[in-house]
Amino acid sequence: MKHYLALSLFAATLCAEEGMWTFNGFPAAKVKQAYGFAPDQAWLDNVRLSSARIAQGCSSSFVSPQGLVLTNHHCASSCIQQLSTKDNDLMSNGFYAATADAERRCPNLELNQLAEITDVTARFTAATKGKTGEAYDKAQKETSSKIEQECAQGDEKRVCEVVSLYNGGIYNLYRYRRFSDVRLVFAPEFAIAFFGGDPDNFTFPRYDLDLTMFRIYEDNKPVNTPNYLRWSATGAKEGELVFTSGHPGSTDRLETVAGFEKMRGEDYPRRLLMLSEYRGMLGQFQERGEEQKRVSNNDLFGVENSLKAIRGQFEALLKPGFLPEKQKAESELQRRINANPKWRAEYGSAWKDEAAALRQLSATGAASTAYSGLSQSRLFTIARTLVFSAIERPKPDAERMSNYRDSSLPRVRAALLSPAPINRELETEKLAFMLTRMREMLGPDHIAVKTMLGKASPRDVAVRLVKETKLDDPALRKSLYEGGAAAMAANNDPMIQFARLYEPIGRAHNDLIEKQIQPALTAASERIARARFAVFGSSVYPDATFSLRLSFGSVKGYQENGRNINPTTIIGGAFERQTGSDPYRLPDSWMNAKEQLDLTVPFNFVSTNDIIGGNSGSPVINQKAELVGLVFDGNIQSLGGSFGYDPEVNRTVSVHVRAITEVMRKIYKTTRLLEELGVN
Amino acid sequence: MKHYLALSLFAATLCAEEGMWTFNGFPAAKVKQAYGFAPDQAWLDNVRLSSARIAQGCSSSFVSPQGLVLTNHHCASSCIQQLSTKDNDLMSNGFYAATADAERRCPNLELNQLAEITDVTARFTAATKGKTGEAYDKAQKETSSKIEQECAQGDEKRVCEVVSLYNGGIYNLYRYRRFSDVRLVFAPEFAIAFFGGDPDNFTFPRYDLDLTMFRIYEDNKPVNTPNYLRWSATGAKEGELVFTSGHPGSTDRLETVAGFEKMRGEDYPRRLLMLSEYRGMLGQFQERGEEQKRVSNNDLFGVENSLKAIRGQFEALLKPGFLPEKQKAESELQRRINANPKWRAEYGSAWKDEAAALRQLSATGAASTAYSGLSQSRLFTIARTLVFSAIERPKPDAERMSNYRDSSLPRVRAALLSPAPINRELETEKLAFMLTRMREMLGPDHIAVKTMLGKASPRDVAVRLVKETKLDDPALRKSLYEGGAAAMAANNDPMIQFARLYEPIGRAHNDLIEKQIQPALTAASERIARARFAVFGSSVYPDATFSLRLSFGSVKGYQENGRNINPTTIIGGAFERQTGSDPYRLPDSWMNAKEQLDLTVPFNFVSTNDIIGGNSGSPVINQKAELVGLVFDGNIQSLGGSFGYDPEVNRTVSVHVRAITEVMRKIYKTTRLLEELGVN
Repeated sequence: MKHYLALSLFAATLCAEEGMWTFNGFPAAKVKQAYGFAPDQAWLDNVRLSSARIAQGCSSSFVSPQGLVLTNHHCASSCIQQLSTKDNDLMSNGFYAATADAERRCPNLELNQLAEITDVTARFTAATKGKTGEAYDKAQKETSSKIEQECAQGDEKRVCEVVSLYNGGIYNLYRYRRFSDVRLVFAPEFAIAFFGGDPDNFTFPRYDLDLTMFRIYEDNKPVNTPNYLRWSATGAKEGELVFTSGHPGSTDRLETVAGFEKMRGEDYPRRLLMLSEYRGMLGQFQERGEEQKRVSNNDLFGVENSLKAIRGQFEALLKPGFLPEKQKAESELQRRINANPKWRAEYGSAWKDEAAALRQLSATGAASTAYSGLSQSRLFTIARTLVFSAIERPKPDAERMSNYRDSSLPRVRAALLSPAPINRELETEKLAFMLTRMREMLGPDHIAVKTMLGKASPRDVAVRLVKETKLDDPALRKSLYEGGAAAMAANNDPMIQFARLYEPIGRAHNDLIEKQIQPALTAASERIARARFAVFGSSVYPDATFSLRLSFGSVKGYQENGRNINPTTIIGGAFERQTGSDPYRLPDSWMNAKEQLDLTVPFNFVSTNDIIGGNSGSPVINQKAELVGLVFDGNIQSLGGSFGYDPEVNRTVSVHVRAITEVMRKIYKTTRLLEELGVN
Repeated sequence: MKHYLALSLFAATLCAEEGMWTFNGFPAAKVKQAYGFAPDQAWLDNVRLSSARIAQGCSSSFVSPQGLVLTNHHCASSCIQQLSTKDNDLMSNGFYAATADAERRCPNLELNQLAEITDVTARFTAATKGKTGEAYDKAQKETSSKIEQECAQGDEKRVCEVVSLYNGGIYNLYRYRRFSDVRLVFAPEFAIAFFGGDPDNFTFPRYDLDLTMFRIYEDNKPVNTPNYLRWSATGAKEGELVFTSGHPGSTDRLETVAGFEKMRGEDYPRRLLMLSEYRGMLGQFQERGEEQKRVSNNDLFGVENSLKAIRGQFEALLKPGFLPEKQKAESELQRRINANPKWRAEYGSAWKDEAAALRQLSATGAASTAYSGLSQSRLFTIARTLVFSAIERPKPDAERMSNYRDSSLPRVRAALLSPAPINRELETEKLAFMLTRMREMLGPDHIAVKTMLGKASPRDVAVRLVKETKLDDPALRKSLYEGGAAAMAANNDPMIQFARLYEPIGRAHNDLIEKQIQPALTAASERIARARFAVFGSSVYPDATFSLRLSFGSVKGYQENGRNINPTTIIGGAFERQTGSDPYRLPDSWMNAKEQLDLTVPFNFVSTNDIIGGNSGSPVINQKAELVGLVFDGNIQSLGGSFGYDPEVNRTVSVHVRAITEVMRKIYKTTRLLEELGVN
């Protein structure tokens, strides 16, 4: 929600590899100076068009001219699980479409390819000129909505997003091509995709084949993708320059001290404790039986992954030196602003204004966490979407809640109508859990609790709603969505009734944040951003915004507790580490093929590229724009990357291209794919 | 483990009610000045002898001359649960022994009455004179052991503990009389004992009847207790002076900045996340069925209570101003020490030494949490106790691990031989959970993980051990404990074998802390303590050490979010708050008696007494040493009390004596008890 500026306070000392650069602001000269190579425009265009965002929160790339997509297994796992059944669990068994016909459509997956970036800053400047407060906010939203609608032209194949960079200093229009028919082509067994499981997650050395291949279709035919990354036969050497092209989700590298204090004192503890407890609940739910385990696996792994990542960030915030150092830098900036009367008049009070807005935001924090927790229940989320969209869609685009604007609706609709099966037993537990947490976080006397639960217990409510609702039927959802307000008025599904109880509460909460607090926060943050521009200039990169970025770096090890960590592991290492028990159990396919494998082939490797969550599935590319690896993780030291980049220890973790080739050839025997990749 | 000094840096500004005072250091003059009343020695002796510690971690008092004990329901709940069966759940139904014969012995509960306090500082000073390092440490332990053994005279009815106050500035011998035959007399239903459940825990207004009555026996007869608290007919008025006499567990009010940073950055997050997840696991385990719910209720409530308390403490540590203020005070103290050449030479380096010891302790933190987590499994704890005690008991007292010294053995033995039933299903889940957490916290390559799990999964190990062990048989435990090393050598119970794998690892861990880190930490902390004495003098109270303390204060409301909180609630409030669903369901006994009850009778009240965890069950006493209330909680604002006392909002929460009388008379009809209490 907050798009803070990510200028380094000490721009001159920006580390060589630091930065998640936009494709229209890439520091080619700097790379040339450090590595003797600079990508030209053709190189950048090709890599941009070879990259694809997974709308649900990951990155990927095209690796053949027939729309073959490479991403992570953990980015594909919700699709893989949705295509699984009790009798054929594709998570456990893996999947390979030996023929084109066998490729299977994912119930709810969308790919976006970045077609064009246009600067639209001038339109915003013109529209908001002389305006303040609510009028300013309204003008901004209308401009944004108008630009996006003009761009999309009502074409569902276009995704148009105005991206605010440098905290409103620059507005760019990102136009993507949308692909919504995404089919599963190849996925190895979960046991090797996530070998070492949660214990080894975010660590290195690693031995994971965290990959999946998709193919994009249109009109039931594979899409031609003339821009794609060639498959490297050798991978990258130690010290070699490599790039990652992907979609880092968000960073807060230059949050104010007040913002960091709020994160450290409120947001992180609240979220971590909730996630931890949710993990405990899901872990125990899994013990009910094999089928319960299967249907909850993906949730559990998602929770464990978030938990470890957020915990790492929290630990970075808790480091004794962290805040005092930020405080020192902020005081120095304020000192320089106050020393100049003009700057002082313009920016001097911005920090106080921002702190005031943050205090308002604090008061909404528990409710935000509680309400967003409820979306863990898919049935409740469906009901909520139906209720809100019936109200919002008839409104003019700029007046809608942000989730229901035209640019978002195709995604909303796809999620709503996804035929993925819904497990009522798990739904009951999730909803009971989240309603209980809501009551705990808000207190029994809160309006939401009183309205939604009345005198009933959270569990009783959840049991009844999940049992009685019919929203697990995609056809019903379709008719309600398309029938709009009239169809909704005629429906008395208990989950929809429940979502109606929530609607005015959720709306008031959302309005308070979107219409009051956020504009005040943005106004203050913009002034702080301008203060920084005034003092330090602007040759830097913006914070991550889940838009396409290019990072550069090199294959390089690091030191941990005085030990040297080699940048590369080999396939043989996985066999040494395996114990036969989860999560250190290699799949049978691997155990049986051990004799045939070249155990010295590189498996995983680390590089100094600056990435963050959302970059999962990004290609690692060499100077010739060949694919040398597949990003799937950062090391534990990179988790503080939300707040800053440490070149000594911050590392990107990737699957080595040679390992992929080796196992596709000898274990999975994916002959037609190897041919398509141009591998002999 | 750490007994820090709790001198206020600003002794002169010590708040009126602040302080958990020893009975031999009570500031009677100060109370006189503030309230016009000072307890004399006879008053103090009577209150001391009317108080009793529950060895498992609570406080209580005698309320009749026939050994009738008043404490909290939540202090008695493990006994109540252990006496329950599938067919008669005393937690749900409550318990009342209508005749003396019906009073039921608790499987494992011990009461300690403080008979005498003796100053033994001189013996320590003499024994350690001129010694340093290991020799100093050894002399201290031997002195302590010798004093305790002389005092105990091999009599199991005596508990003798050397208490280090002011961080070793003063050593006092606390001699208690031990009562190990404790019988359940009266307990209301859990639904009213903990009305409002976890959501209302640590809040106010409250409506809880959190009480239980025990009776102590010796030789199958009730013990005479000539010192006891008379039952007040009226309770205490607003503004009235009241005392609490109980056993606050521990405080860290004058921890160093390095210590606070370690707590905030490591100890609290680690423990909170583990507890949260454990809560989620237990909550979901409860959904397996009614019986599973019954057997896990007490664990769950314990976890939720800890979680909320620890979280409140953590939030106090995270407050933006907290550490900077501590840093300022510490820097000022250091400045004054360094300004005096003699002080500088003696104390100047103490902070650096302490920080170094804390860094060593940090390195052991994950293992400490992991190993102590394992004691959630009672079967593992039994095996571990048997293995360690067979090795430790033959050694001289001073050379044993601290848990196995003579002063602790009766408690160890009672816990080991307690006939309380053990539920294997729950045991399996707990052990599987804690072994999984151990592997997560230590990493799969840690010696403990490799030794104890080998290549098996934590769950498989837990399932096998719990299934195959025979240690649920108290007779077997008795024969193994009494048979010592020979009996143990002949036994091949799989859980004992498993504990044997742990033994060298746990011992090495313990030795590292007890023999290396702790002595260094103590040495540094003592010097810091002396530095404080040098600068600020000594008319203050020591940090809490789970030894008997007296606090004074008055019945008084407070402000919360701008609202005035009345100090007293009434019985009618519970009926207004009840919804019919847990945790806001009043028991049938209450619903049925509503007409008969006087709804205006005070139910719970708050006072300014300075207490902390361990004080649960403490009596609230007026000037005439009459019982006017029963402490059962602190408000949410009191949770930061670990680190300081805030007179504006820090409040003790108690059950009002009049509510107890009213419901014993009209709902529970405990005629013989009312007569015993002298209530008409």
